[in-house]
Amino acid sequence: MNFQSDNAAAVCPEVLAAVVDAGAASPAAYDADTWTARLDGVYSDVFGTACTVLPVSTGSAANALALAAMVPSYGAVACHAEAHIHVDECGAPEFFTGGAKLLLCHGDNGKLTPGSVTASLAAHRGGVHQVQLGALSLTQATECGTVYTAGEVAALAGLAQSRGWKVHMDGARFANAMVALGCAPGDITWRAGVDILSLGAIKNGGMTAEAMVIFAPELVEEIRFRRKRAGQMPSKGRFNAAQLLAYVETGAWTRNAHAANAGAAKLAAAIGPRAVYPVQANEVFADLGPNGAGTLRDAGFLFYDWADPADHVARFVVAWDTPAADIDALAAAVARLD
Amino acid sequence: MNFQSDNAAAVCPEVLAAVVDAGAASPAAYDADTWTARLDGVYSDVFGTACTVLPVSTGSAANALALAAMVPSYGAVACHAEAHIHVDECGAPEFFTGGAKLLLCHGDNGKLTPGSVTASLAAHRGGVHQVQLGALSLTQATECGTVYTAGEVAALAGLAQSRGWKVHMDGARFANAMVALGCAPGDITWRAGVDILSLGAIKNGGMTAEAMVIFAPELVEEIRFRRKRAGQMPSKGRFNAAQLLAYVETGAWTRNAHAANAGAAKLAAAIGPRAVYPVQANEVFADLGPNGAGTLRDAGFLFYDWADPADHVARFVVAWDTPAADIDALAAAVARLD
Amino acid sequence: MNFQSDNAAAVCPEVLAAVVDAGAASPAAYDADTWTARLDGVYSDVFGTACTVLPVSTGSAANALALAAMVPSYGAVACHAEAHIHVDECGAPEFFTGGAKLLLCHGDNGKLTPGSVTASLAAHRGGVHQVQLGALSLTQATECGTVYTAGEVAALAGLAQSRGWKVHMDGARFANAMVALGCAPGDITWRAGVDILSLGAIKNGGMTAEAMVIFAPELVEEIRFRRKRAGQMPSKGRFNAAQLLAYVETGAWTRNAHAANAGAAKLAAAIGPRAVYPVQANEVFADLGPNGAGTLRDAGFLFYDWADPADHVARFVVAWDTPAADIDALAAAVARLD
Amino acid sequence: MNFQSDNAAAVCPEVLAAVVDAGAASPAAYDADTWTARLDGVYSDVFGTACTVLPVSTGSAANALALAAMVPSYGAVACHAEAHIHVDECGAPEFFTGGAKLLLCHGDNGKLTPGSVTASLAAHRGGVHQVQLGALSLTQATECGTVYTAGEVAALAGLAQSRGWKVHMDGARFANAMVALGCAPGDITWRAGVDILSLGAIKNGGMTAEAMVIFAPELVEEIRFRRKRAGQMPSKGRFNAAQLLAYVETGAWTRNAHAANAGAAKLAAAIGPRAVYPVQANEVFADLGPNGAGTLRDAGFLFYDWADPADHVARFVVAWDTPAADIDALAAAVARLD
Repeated sequence: MNFQSDNAAAVCPEVLAAVVDAGAASPAAYDADTWTARLDGVYSDVFGTACTVLPVSTGSAANALALAAMVPSYGAVACHAEAHIHVDECGAPEFFTGGAKLLLCHGDNGKLTPGSVTASLAAHRGGVHQVQLGALSLTQATECGTVYTAGEVAALAGLAQSRGWKVHMDGARFANAMVALGCAPGDITWRAGVDILSLGAIKNGGMTAEAMVIFAPELVEEIRFRRKRAGQMPSKGRFNAAQLLAYVETGAWTRNAHAANAGAAKLAAAIGPRAVYPVQANEVFADLGPNGAGTLRDAGFLFYDWADPADHVARFVVAWDTPAADIDALAAAVARLD
Repeated sequence: MNFQSDNAAAVCPEVLAAVVDAGAASPAAYDADTWTARLDGVYSDVFGTACTVLPVSTGSAANALALAAMVPSYGAVACHAEAHIHVDECGAPEFFTGGAKLLLCHGDNGKLTPGSVTASLAAHRGGVHQVQLGALSLTQATECGTVYTAGEVAALAGLAQSRGWKVHMDGARFANAMVALGCAPGDITWRAGVDILSLGAIKNGGMTAEAMVIFAPELVEEIRFRRKRAGQMPSKGRFNAAQLLAYVETGAWTRNAHAANAGAAKLAAAIGPRAVYPVQANEVFADLGPNGAGTLRDAGFLFYDWADPADHVARFVVAWDTPAADIDALAAAVARLD
Repeated sequence: MNFQSDNAAAVCPEVLAAVVDAGAASPAAYDADTWTARLDGVYSDVFGTACTVLPVSTGSAANALALAAMVPSYGAVACHAEAHIHVDECGAPEFFTGGAKLLLCHGDNGKLTPGSVTASLAAHRGGVHQVQLGALSLTQATECGTVYTAGEVAALAGLAQSRGWKVHMDGARFANAMVALGCAPGDITWRAGVDILSLGAIKNGGMTAEAMVIFAPELVEEIRFRRKRAGQMPSKGRFNAAQLLAYVETGAWTRNAHAANAGAAKLAAAIGPRAVYPVQANEVFADLGPNGAGTLRDAGFLFYDWADPADHVARFVVAWDTPAADIDALAAAVARLD
Repeated sequence: MNFQSDNAAAVCPEVLAAVVDAGAASPAAYDADTWTARLDGVYSDVFGTACTVLPVSTGSAANALALAAMVPSYGAVACHAEAHIHVDECGAPEFFTGGAKLLLCHGDNGKLTPGSVTASLAAHRGGVHQVQLGALSLTQATECGTVYTAGEVAALAGLAQSRGWKVHMDGARFANAMVALGCAPGDITWRAGVDILSLGAIKNGGMTAEAMVIFAPELVEEIRFRRKRAGQMPSKGRFNAAQLLAYVETGAWTRNAHAANAGAAKLAAAIGPRAVYPVQANEVFADLGPNGAGTLRDAGFLFYDWADPADHVARFVVAWDTPAADIDALAAAVARLD
């Protein structure tokens, strides 16, 4: 009964079928195949605006390539102190940018606000002795399983634009957020001011491809070179393109996200006041008390402690294919804790 | 009738089956799955020595990560002036190493010798004003479709070792070379002094995974961090591991390479004295004269010019799945040229 | 009446004389001159242990080169959140290290303790998904004008060593700290566990040279290459070496630091409870209230706000050559504030 | 009798006097002093156009900062295979650019021509698989002691501009070239299409400062940040500015260069057909035959072999202060060789 992450889940049938379908020889390599040729058009339809889609092999690559196109090596990116790009990518943003800094901002429930960003950066003067802020990176859904509304994204992007910063969205669980909000994908991205979306597919039924969805055309060319240079431009790119086409064209992305979110909601109902953050997508953070984690692990549940183990907070992630029985069993087990 | 490259070929059935087989949910992400767990053991058996295998998404990533572990940012890598790492990776080695230099060496037929390396680097003094040579990178089979014998690799690695350099092998077409030599994989790698092999699979029937095969255990830990940092550690790594297991366990790698090499040999026989380099693996370079390329293209053959178009040299690559009829047709068409 | 910084002060006579004395032609460039030849010996005597001295042109270069030798590009340096390396070097550490991260720690009065470092880093797990901590950087005297005792340095270095980290000391105002403590230079550096000291000279009567004083011999060779590569190895290095010799051989460094510290002490006495931090070296931080800064500036005093201007904290720096009359005038002016 | 280089020569009296004059306290640090304030105006007058001057501590720093502002990390710089930036800066350009490549071009006597550049780069296709050429770097005077005429510079810069490249000039011995040509400084820089000149002063009577003379205003802001980040923005920048003002305002730069060139001309006359390259500035390259170098060294002359020692080519550099007697003695000694 595994609630460690959604990143080891099954590949959904539509994505797997698309890979099989791309198996035969293609007339051309390096993004000159027919699958890749369709990517921009399909995603432009889905997002409701012209955009460019570049597949990459991991979310870290998508995030780091996006930031490298947004800030110079002497630049800086404002992000939440809990952001994956700061905590869990072994310094990929610093590597890809050539040494730009992440300037950490704070905010409740994993979310930033214009006020919290402004306050967090108040002492940053920005002269020649300091790195130059050039981008704001948001996570949707956040590391805490919460979701930015379209208005909240727009307010943050407005602050960014007023300062001349680009806006990046780490959408490792973007579909979960979109489904939670019941909005169109464009509503919480380009319409709200996002320049590049790192669109996660792997956690939500995908296989080996994530997508950079680029709404700012002036950033595209640079990213093409950086992507090649980073070893992220595979010769048989048709397999990644095929996955990303199936992911949105078949509707798998919304169906899978609905399933995961529903499971988390059920778990949240059972957990009640133990919840540390509002449960808005497919992650549940619970205060298990000093002994709860051990009890649950003894009962066969797998999950991670969140941040400092001394806080007794556990993270439970529900995947698109987590068995309902596992969720019910966990809900019951948590209810039995002291 | 496509002879542009082997990198858009079909995926062979064994590799595709392995991917499908890995589709169900795994208990663990990030190299903690059961496929990845078997990689080191299987490859250690195949190569006849203990080694560590780390999957990556492209050959450029494999090459650049290997070199980054071998030389510091103020270091240098000796390689052939035609090497893919110099010509066709958009500076990936420079990016991953933090700015090390490639020092270009010369040699006939795309091959280096101890003498040619020594002569090419004679003016490099190596004091504090100069970058520090720390690695030699060989390509097997070479960019010219030729093959280093085990003795030739050993002689070059001997030179490297005498100077304290590590030895990297770009084996984008390693199986083709191995099959051409009729040797064991260990004979032209670790037994001859190679520290890290970038083992190509994609060109030879693979899908989305290449392998770093690391024979020098002291380099492994650093590469793990650099690989993560480069966005080359996917959560669902089981799909890449499964491909690399099937590639060698089923014998697909040698069968596919045999097929490609045989096709090239047939073509070489037809081309005769037009051959620019000895045809030893699955690539044929031919001097088509001033009008030959146009004639062949008009007849429906796809292929690339090699280096400066003014030289009239064409490169024909035979893939594992190139139809025999296409090869026959090309052979006949070349024979008809003036 | 300028209290902005000690970094625009006069050059002391001994340093200037040394520069003039080095003016004639030298038989050799690039550290092969007779001044540079004496550096290691003279500093080894002064510090009481064998060390290597490499001149550089700025403190930022000294700090960044030291850190680059201590941590890999996927590494991290623990430092105070107020540290100059984080706040005021435009990302030099990230540039020189190839993208390592600074992990920010907290502590009162600009000082870290083993407990504050441990607590600040508690959530850093350190696996392959995270950067690898490899160094601790301390500032002596601190950004807040406070001083670490020998015991405090040793306790922090002990923590570092227990975790396998190197220890760097940013000694932009090292002489001020040493004089304040009345200790030998070795007591708060190598004897306490410091591996590399960035020894500031420019703020304390120097001209164009700062010194890297390296106590860890295994780091020297790498730094030589990185220094050249960073454009920090001048051909006429004799001028920088001459300054650094005169700085310590003539006793100028202690005499100058005594003068600056004494001025700050006088100012501290006048400022009394407005002091925000203990005044231990040559910097005084004072809460001037909402109107104080304006009043003082109208009266002709130059100084900087500290951090967020809304805090009303001013920083006054006393240089080795600040006129006593200016100090007296400032003391009187502060006393007259509401 | 030292002919190793001009980089260990004496500081000329005007430069030394300027340093002494700047010794007293300045009201402001970090380029806010009155010396630095005059730099742009004085150099704009000297060069005959508006330009920005940024002092740095070495020529390597000037070169590398200039190139970093001209090409992205995935970029490339075309330069002569003998260029100092390739051979003798320990990879500084690669470091400062974040891993851009130098693409080596060939040309007789250390000089490039539009034709030689075009031919050298003929095989560089420039697509997404290759680094992007963005700058041409010329050396004036060249590594071989030859000089580009204004027309030759303009022809090369014309090629660069037609391809969208910026033009950098490594002017480590710029004054020697200017004096040799008898032209105005603007004639062989901005009027001929140069965007940034690394103006050498140290070899020609200077002390610790070289100048970046920036004619392309769009590059200035970026260089300010990169310069700070590289540890090349000293607090007491007045000392470097003062040197660079004296260097041109007093006429020292032309007087010193005349002296050095005259000495080399005298030596060239004595050496006659042994000269390997035309002697046009202050360097003389001579084929000494198998035994000549030893004979001269036994006689007390210091000099370097050039490139591969097996070629028996020696480099003799005449500095602004090389004693006439030493030149006469060397001329006589060479004349006595077999």
